[in-house]
Amino acid sequence: MIAKTPQAPYYAVIFTSVRTDNHEGYAEMAAKMIELAQQQDGFLGMESVRNEYGITVSYWQDLNAIQSWRNHVEHTVAKDKGRKEWYKSFKTRIARVEQDYGFVKGS
Amino acid sequence: MIAKTPQAPYYAVIFTSVRTDNHEGYAEMAAKMIELAQQQDGFLGMESVRNEYGITVSYWQDLNAIQSWRNHVEHTVAKDKGRKEWYKSFKTRIARVEQDYGFVKGS
Repeated sequence: MIAKTPQAPYYAVIFTSVRTDNHEGYAEMAAKMIELAQQQDGFLGMESVRNEYGITVSYWQDLNAIQSWRNHVEHTVAKDKGRKEWYKSFKTRIARVEQDYGFVKGS
Repeated sequence: MIAKTPQAPYYAVIFTSVRTDNHEGYAEMAAKMIELAQQQDGFLGMESVRNEYGITVSYWQDLNAIQSWRNHVEHTVAKDKGRKEWYKSFKTRIARVEQDYGFVKGS
């Protein structure tokens, strides 16, 4: 769903990926990584949609929080496995959210 | 697909949305807006995935390009229609991409 993030500025990691035909173990690992990310200091929220390819955006308080998550041992293992087995290609973009606004019907 | 963006910095507009059950005219308008966005000065690329909800990330050269697209007459009409008919809720985040890196299998 739409992540409830605090007032800007904060950071977004935009991860766009195309998968291989090998999906073995992917769903379990993805679920585990989401759970683990949520436990990290500075984690603010996550949005993820997948069909033929996927976009996952995670939100973080600052660059340090992103750096810590990048270096997290279990995350590193998952990423290695991702490169070897699950992803044909991906792109990771680290961005500073400077402004945001929303809309909720009837509110 | 994964947008081929230039070297950072550049800007990203992350649009996360939840739709109503009224899909009438939505696909046509979405296709038209993608076509129109691509014609704007400073447009760099777009990634969009939808299932139960949607994430569309468009990439832009600078904030001026984003502002111009925001104020584009046809885009404004589409957004009004979106608020009235197609979207239950959405969030738009404007972010400065500071760093990116990618992976392509076998390359």
